[in-house]
Amino acid sequence: MSPIRMFEKPLGMRDTFPKIFEKKEVVRQTGRDFLQLRGFDFIKTPTLEYYDTVGKASAIVESSLFKLVDSQGNTLVLRPDMTTPIARVASSKLLKEKIPLRLAYFSNVFRAQETEGGRPAEFEQMGVEIIGDPSVYADAEVLLTVIELLKALEVKQFKLTIGNVGILNAILTQNVRTEEQFKELHKLLVEKNIVGFEEAVKFFELPQKNKQTLLTFIEEATDLNNINQIDKYLIEKDDFIYMERLQKILAISEVEKYIYFDFTLASHMNYYSGMLFEVFATGAGFPLGNGGRYDGLLDEFGSQVGAIGFGLRVDQLLEVMPSFQKDQEEVLVLFAQNEFPKAVAKAATLRKEGKRTTLQSIEGIENIAVFEQLFSKVVRIG
Amino acid sequence: MSPIRMFEKPLGMRDTFPKIFEKKEVVRQTGRDFLQLRGFDFIKTPTLEYYDTVGKASAIVESSLFKLVDSQGNTLVLRPDMTTPIARVASSKLLKEKIPLRLAYFSNVFRAQETEGGRPAEFEQMGVEIIGDPSVYADAEVLLTVIELLKALEVKQFKLTIGNVGILNAILTQNVRTEEQFKELHKLLVEKNIVGFEEAVKFFELPQKNKQTLLTFIEEATDLNNINQIDKYLIEKDDFIYMERLQKILAISEVEKYIYFDFTLASHMNYYSGMLFEVFATGAGFPLGNGGRYDGLLDEFGSQVGAIGFGLRVDQLLEVMPSFQKDQEEVLVLFAQNEFPKAVAKAATLRKEGKRTTLQSIEGIENIAVFEQLFSKVVRIG
Repeated sequence: MSPIRMFEKPLGMRDTFPKIFEKKEVVRQTGRDFLQLRGFDFIKTPTLEYYDTVGKASAIVESSLFKLVDSQGNTLVLRPDMTTPIARVASSKLLKEKIPLRLAYFSNVFRAQETEGGRPAEFEQMGVEIIGDPSVYADAEVLLTVIELLKALEVKQFKLTIGNVGILNAILTQNVRTEEQFKELHKLLVEKNIVGFEEAVKFFELPQKNKQTLLTFIEEATDLNNINQIDKYLIEKDDFIYMERLQKILAISEVEKYIYFDFTLASHMNYYSGMLFEVFATGAGFPLGNGGRYDGLLDEFGSQVGAIGFGLRVDQLLEVMPSFQKDQEEVLVLFAQNEFPKAVAKAATLRKEGKRTTLQSIEGIENIAVFEQLFSKVVRIG
Repeated sequence: MSPIRMFEKPLGMRDTFPKIFEKKEVVRQTGRDFLQLRGFDFIKTPTLEYYDTVGKASAIVESSLFKLVDSQGNTLVLRPDMTTPIARVASSKLLKEKIPLRLAYFSNVFRAQETEGGRPAEFEQMGVEIIGDPSVYADAEVLLTVIELLKALEVKQFKLTIGNVGILNAILTQNVRTEEQFKELHKLLVEKNIVGFEEAVKFFELPQKNKQTLLTFIEEATDLNNINQIDKYLIEKDDFIYMERLQKILAISEVEKYIYFDFTLASHMNYYSGMLFEVFATGAGFPLGNGGRYDGLLDEFGSQVGAIGFGLRVDQLLEVMPSFQKDQEEVLVLFAQNEFPKAVAKAATLRKEGKRTTLQSIEGIENIAVFEQLFSKVVRIG
């Protein structure tokens, strides 16, 4: 092996060094305490799943899946998301015991990268799923949980953009003529390409009235504090009435400054079926995470219950969290040969006082002066 | 997909449900606080590594490796242990900054299973590595750290069996004639097959004197509180002198009741080069973990420094730890439509008091009576 190759890691794979590890621990611990207190139970699922069960049901594109073949010839995948494995678990066993289920996770997921473009192939998500509650209050709880969690993590400026798959799909369907037109427009919205959307609408063979409706909608449907003006676009009102209820609940919860509605919001996650949302840190540009209702996904696993959840990306959270600089004293107890018992006793005392203490023999160390500089206090014995 | 297949997981893969998750969290949290306080820094390495770097250097047999091929055609492995990735990290970058390095981890590792024999294909290890300290005090620190950690985890009865690769290899080499004989005897010792060892010695073509030495050794070398009687078997004394120093250090550390020496101890981990040990819970039969010196492993990554570490299996620890039954109050705030604001306020108050509180609308729940039974206290609003 060449000396360079020796230290290499696969495309998109990273080591987490102590400083970043500790920052992640703050997210993990704060998130865990917070979600536990709200009645969420933490679970873990295996890293490997059958391609036929979780791989196919997940909304991640094939080329992003890490696949392998086991000794029986089955195709396995490294879990590409957590929602699908939790849907599997919930449908198989847990579900019968405790409905509505409130589950939480802090877990790594995998996305194969084609090039070394700075995007991680393995990253951590923290999230929740409420399974078996079809009411609008579950939507509200998920949204309030995200908002309160971000506040607990001291993320200063953030926004939730809330949309609805049913409403967007109805408006597109009412105004296009073909499946292809629908797909094209939907894809452009997933990419947030509004200019492309407008150009496509103008280019399509459609009645002028429909074109005008789509163009007005795309302008009117974003950045909404009040969703009333969307009513007029819809023939079937169920989804709208649902969102109106949600808007009222959020209004009385006094979280309006964190949210706005955007009915052009579309997701490549094809299992979302109702309300969906994205979380943005103000000024950061990248999404911290997303969530939504996926009542259909559990059908795939044989359960006909409502479900809703969210997932936040831990690496993105670290970018917008304040630095939790712990000024912990780092003590070094450096001992000469034969002074081991005294050094052990001294270290034990310091640790009992809560001081982080490293015990080191002079014999085992090459450059004492350099090593000592790593500590805020040095106790020499012997 | 058949409805049975729908819920299946790959061979040896498990879900971790909330109760076990919480027990693991006790291990994780206790272990983390403990190791942090002793000056160990936690790190994380990627799940996937190149087969050519970490896969080949690890001591895990080929058939237990999960392998896959990435989009560039490189063979990757799911990390089979943590010692090899840490050796890679330490040799590549960190090492120059802080020698001796004290690193710790709590991480899942992977071992492919051929049959559903109840053995997990993914399990968690907690451990440490001290890199760059060739002194016997590093051996002592690792052993004392294991002992103190097990006490912190309230494992009541356990033993450490301590051996030495150099001493065992010397005694075998001095008394056999061929490489094959050496390998056969070593393999039998790895399997702890003493009867097989004795039969093999009797069967081998060897001088009677050598046979007698090996048979006496195998009887005399186990369960030792004092290692003096091993001296006579050795021509080259360096390893023995090292172990004598270690014995003295452990004696003054008052941990004798937890340890005994066994120079027949052999490991399939072929990177161990000096002292090695196994940790057993009394009465349990299975090892909780193991460790040892592996000065050679870092050579593979281009670093010529001493290293030593241990890893404990979290699933085995759970079997011998007392149950930490938290009698946490579980409150349910159940609210009728339009009572959401009052319910949110009530839940917030309860949570501020540290009470785990689930907020649930009556609307979103099918069987109220069954659900209420899951909580120690129910507050109805409206």
